[in-house]
Amino acid sequence: MIDFRNDYGQGAHEQVLDALTALAGRSFSGYGEDELCLAAQQRVRRLTSQPQAALHFLSGGTQANLTVIASMLRPHQGVIAADTAHIAAHETGAIEATGHKVLTLPHRDGKLCPDDVERLVAQHYADESFEHTVQPGMVYISNTTELGSIYTAQELAALSRVCRARNLPLYLDGARLGYALASQGNDLTLADVAKHCDAFTIGLTKQGALFGEAVVIVSPALQRDFRYIIKQRGGMLAKGWLMGAQFEALMEDDLYGQLSRHAVGLAMRLKEGLKEMAVPFLSDSPSNQQFPILPNDVIAALREQFAFHLIEVVDEEHTGVRFCTSWYTRPEDVEALLAALARLI
Amino acid sequence: MIDFRNDYGQGAHEQVLDALTALAGRSFSGYGEDELCLAAQQRVRRLTSQPQAALHFLSGGTQANLTVIASMLRPHQGVIAADTAHIAAHETGAIEATGHKVLTLPHRDGKLCPDDVERLVAQHYADESFEHTVQPGMVYISNTTELGSIYTAQELAALSRVCRARNLPLYLDGARLGYALASQGNDLTLADVAKHCDAFTIGLTKQGALFGEAVVIVSPALQRDFRYIIKQRGGMLAKGWLMGAQFEALMEDDLYGQLSRHAVGLAMRLKEGLKEMAVPFLSDSPSNQQFPILPNDVIAALREQFAFHLIEVVDEEHTGVRFCTSWYTRPEDVEALLAALARLI
Amino acid sequence: MIDFRNDYGQGAHEQVLDALTALAGRSFSGYGEDELCLAAQQRVRRLTSQPQAALHFLSGGTQANLTVIASMLRPHQGVIAADTAHIAAHETGAIEATGHKVLTLPHRDGKLCPDDVERLVAQHYADESFEHTVQPGMVYISNTTELGSIYTAQELAALSRVCRARNLPLYLDGARLGYALASQGNDLTLADVAKHCDAFTIGLTKQGALFGEAVVIVSPALQRDFRYIIKQRGGMLAKGWLMGAQFEALMEDDLYGQLSRHAVGLAMRLKEGLKEMAVPFLSDSPSNQQFPILPNDVIAALREQFAFHLIEVVDEEHTGVRFCTSWYTRPEDVEALLAALARLI
Amino acid sequence: MIDFRNDYGQGAHEQVLDALTALAGRSFSGYGEDELCLAAQQRVRRLTSQPQAALHFLSGGTQANLTVIASMLRPHQGVIAADTAHIAAHETGAIEATGHKVLTLPHRDGKLCPDDVERLVAQHYADESFEHTVQPGMVYISNTTELGSIYTAQELAALSRVCRARNLPLYLDGARLGYALASQGNDLTLADVAKHCDAFTIGLTKQGALFGEAVVIVSPALQRDFRYIIKQRGGMLAKGWLMGAQFEALMEDDLYGQLSRHAVGLAMRLKEGLKEMAVPFLSDSPSNQQFPILPNDVIAALREQFAFHLIEVVDEEHTGVRFCTSWYTRPEDVEALLAALARLI
Repeated sequence: MIDFRNDYGQGAHEQVLDALTALAGRSFSGYGEDELCLAAQQRVRRLTSQPQAALHFLSGGTQANLTVIASMLRPHQGVIAADTAHIAAHETGAIEATGHKVLTLPHRDGKLCPDDVERLVAQHYADESFEHTVQPGMVYISNTTELGSIYTAQELAALSRVCRARNLPLYLDGARLGYALASQGNDLTLADVAKHCDAFTIGLTKQGALFGEAVVIVSPALQRDFRYIIKQRGGMLAKGWLMGAQFEALMEDDLYGQLSRHAVGLAMRLKEGLKEMAVPFLSDSPSNQQFPILPNDVIAALREQFAFHLIEVVDEEHTGVRFCTSWYTRPEDVEALLAALARLI
Repeated sequence: MIDFRNDYGQGAHEQVLDALTALAGRSFSGYGEDELCLAAQQRVRRLTSQPQAALHFLSGGTQANLTVIASMLRPHQGVIAADTAHIAAHETGAIEATGHKVLTLPHRDGKLCPDDVERLVAQHYADESFEHTVQPGMVYISNTTELGSIYTAQELAALSRVCRARNLPLYLDGARLGYALASQGNDLTLADVAKHCDAFTIGLTKQGALFGEAVVIVSPALQRDFRYIIKQRGGMLAKGWLMGAQFEALMEDDLYGQLSRHAVGLAMRLKEGLKEMAVPFLSDSPSNQQFPILPNDVIAALREQFAFHLIEVVDEEHTGVRFCTSWYTRPEDVEALLAALARLI
Repeated sequence: MIDFRNDYGQGAHEQVLDALTALAGRSFSGYGEDELCLAAQQRVRRLTSQPQAALHFLSGGTQANLTVIASMLRPHQGVIAADTAHIAAHETGAIEATGHKVLTLPHRDGKLCPDDVERLVAQHYADESFEHTVQPGMVYISNTTELGSIYTAQELAALSRVCRARNLPLYLDGARLGYALASQGNDLTLADVAKHCDAFTIGLTKQGALFGEAVVIVSPALQRDFRYIIKQRGGMLAKGWLMGAQFEALMEDDLYGQLSRHAVGLAMRLKEGLKEMAVPFLSDSPSNQQFPILPNDVIAALREQFAFHLIEVVDEEHTGVRFCTSWYTRPEDVEALLAALARLI
Repeated sequence: MIDFRNDYGQGAHEQVLDALTALAGRSFSGYGEDELCLAAQQRVRRLTSQPQAALHFLSGGTQANLTVIASMLRPHQGVIAADTAHIAAHETGAIEATGHKVLTLPHRDGKLCPDDVERLVAQHYADESFEHTVQPGMVYISNTTELGSIYTAQELAALSRVCRARNLPLYLDGARLGYALASQGNDLTLADVAKHCDAFTIGLTKQGALFGEAVVIVSPALQRDFRYIIKQRGGMLAKGWLMGAQFEALMEDDLYGQLSRHAVGLAMRLKEGLKEMAVPFLSDSPSNQQFPILPNDVIAALREQFAFHLIEVVDEEHTGVRFCTSWYTRPEDVEALLAALARLI
């Protein structure tokens, strides 16, 4: 069975595992106050050209999202997000469980449009009973998005301008940030992300590590007391250095970028092959997730050899599916998939 | 520097690391729905003689506590705990952040006394304005306790009887459960714990794993929808099988018990040595944490070679400290400590 | 200035005020445990033919909604509501502040459609990652709705059937229940409401009282410990009997129904007059709120003599407005409004 | 039956009722945005010599407490209070339900001691794992306290100095503020309260109104968006002007002060009479609550004619009780009580 279900189906890249096993017998201070986490923070500051940025490690994406958002909002504020956003649709109400509403806007290819954000905020304050509605307090986006799309440098800059004009912190969920920056047509750098956002994550779990999300808080004003809130929400790992070590292993010699480019390259090979077979797509994704629409009998036959997820019923005979490549996908896996499709279609 | 600060200062026992590296190249279903987690659940059912017990893995102790407690209480209910309990004193209000009060009782050597629990509940309902106070909804204990003490089988059974008579689920935080069951004078088994408690954790982080707490929910009535709440609170690790693999490695051939006995054995050697030097103690701990009272100048001298925590100022010239042994403490570490103390005292 | 802004712009009907002043010098037990609240509960049981119904008084509608909903849901559950629902749109995230998501469905003339509810629930459980989304836990509707529309007996029965089949408590916000039951085309009785819903409110604030909402919890299983939650959410009024007295005054000789019919009658007179002038409407409301679409210059001229709210910009020259009648609207107020409109249009 | 149970057992002083009935036929803007609430705010600014103070009305004390506290704290912060404080002991965990821990200190005659507050804060930051404990975020006191005691001007100033040095907003629950300022030995003025506190309430419910608490937020920095939070917590009464009208009626010609002095004067007469009979007291209260210790047989006999609450079992034959005077207590009620006691003792 060849696995295209997701990018978190296997453990960790061997250099990450080696880095962990190399720590055997060494003692560290607990709770993220160790030299590896410190080194990781220094590295992030260099990589982002943000000498005051703070770095924290959390074990998963939902935890990162709820901790960052809870730390930034007052009780009556909500977080603006696309209706397809992970926090709106796939986190079992984690944000609401911290007391805050997710204020959804219609997505534009998975993304938030600055004009939509501006309109929502303007309408809020224009309403004479504005105090009877949730105050927009911050903005959440993800890159890549849930649909595999990416923000261009221009788009992110435009969104950031609206957010700063409205005094709304902008938070970017980068669970797949590496894949985004390796995507076809990407013109963003990590420094751009740090410049335009007030906080963001650098995803590790889906990008070659065993587990972990690196939370970067750029604005010093937003950094205050963040560790208390990590602890309160259950996210303060006793052995925080495990994430520092994994982060360092992934960033060393840009292994993170290499693995991301590897996955996206295979996704582009797959996309190209599918297009040659005239297969239509749910969306035109430039990243490691591809969403082709396939005949149901083809899907049934494929599933004997390949694992992947069904996403959306298109009509009685067709379904949109997801093929996800990753740091551990092999070129021969993609070729096998294309060969099988060529036989079946 | 020899490290007696805690039992989570090093990564993982080599058999645990080997189990993780042995997974390289294997794909698993995400979010704890894999064969390793299933095998772990089967094993827990055997070990506890509870064929309906449910097993879930969470990455840390605070997360386990807040998730279990949030799942069990209605909004107006609180959790009874000793005033020294971790949830009362060292989790940054994690329980309150889920909306619930911690109803504290004076500890008895770190433990809850059944009569105190019964009295609190009886007083609650005897108060004519009882609806103006938080309703006792469940009971939290830990074993070992924050003071290193342990519950005997008789004590746990007595507490359980009060809880069941009052319809209060009893939850045991077993972050150091292995050390508890290996303690001098312990007469509890894992099956006893499962019999007397409605839910409990089997700590992994402090017991030889990289990370993880195994949450066992014994009562089927309390198991309902628990996975939703794990997800909502940010505790559902994408690669849940990593914890299943570590659990299995630790339980195989009772490595968990061996490592625990190793740590407690060294703690007993340390205790005995200290007693021979007529050193007094803050408490009479039978487990892997020892709390001797030392002269401040001895402490200062020791700290050049040994790392450990200060716990309590006893008088102007003496301080109570903690020496914590663990699965990675070596016999020569303890002997070196005793030798240094013999020279200094 | 004649006030058509809302139905809570004046104090209380004189019989209600008389009932309050008649209490002078009498002492009562506090917190709703008095003979007037008890009498009101007895009356509600008779009026609804529900001999086990519980009655509680809360001072306002948002408080009633958040208290009832918080009492009924487990942490991972959400409340299904129309996207126009008060809890979704006009309570500043009060439900989210208790930790719960509002699961919105597109409204059908302000109402929830049973098929939509069934579809949402079916889709939730059909999703293989259902535990990553909020579990539907109950259903919220209002009668009249935000658009002034009403549920027929058949509609409410059909919705109730879906809810009971799916084990979802059905809660009806009756802030304007009196006006609903007095509406043109209404075929519901209070007993029907109690039969089909698990809990509902009988609005007092907008129906002739100074303040207060009567919360009726029909199902004994849902009544448990409700007073604790009232107290916890700040809703337990010290002088609860004030609401009992107002309720009794309003229900005596069906003053409540008389006042409701008075208001709806005037609204129907207004509607008829507007229709004769060929004025279009935003919606076809049978109740005390009318939503005509008027030319902007007419609106400007009207505002010199009448107070009313703008609701929706229709095009550059027209706006939908709201005229709200109430227990205190006089026939001559409506005639004056119609006369003014006749002059202006 | 003569009622000494509490000070909220009767409706409202006739001048308050007259003010309400005088509003018949007048229309007002809803939600506290009316001319009566505005006039009340102007008056509070004059009375407190705080030209920027904001005034809001909430319907009850628990609601006022939870709304103010939720508005002032970040998620990881707690509120310091005496262990006897209403928010700690008698509000069903209302503060915890907003996510915050109440950090209790031992009371000193019902009051907080500045040195205790300073010590708690100093210890918090001295702890090397301070981020694992709840951060002190504000201070709550009440005047009169739960024990009937009062703060002197010097005590309040000293507490305020500690709070300001530590950047902790000081909030005073004045549910019985009128009685406090009328107490024997009081040297505080309303202006002193406003000067030393960042927010406080002026209680109405127990001081002659039907219902309502006036929340004064002195610091402009703490006023921001408070109305959103009132709405979110369910405290925004539709007919807010009802509280403005009651407030104005009570403050006109210092009716509030007169009623308070009346109640305290009767309490002092009662206290004097009891002392002449050599009756001991639970505490030496200078305000409208008196806590004598009486033989159980006397209590039983008294209860045939008088209503009052039992507070604390003192020994097998004696119980501490509470006699509460109020604006509606008559001199002859106190004389009757003293005469009965003289017969029985």
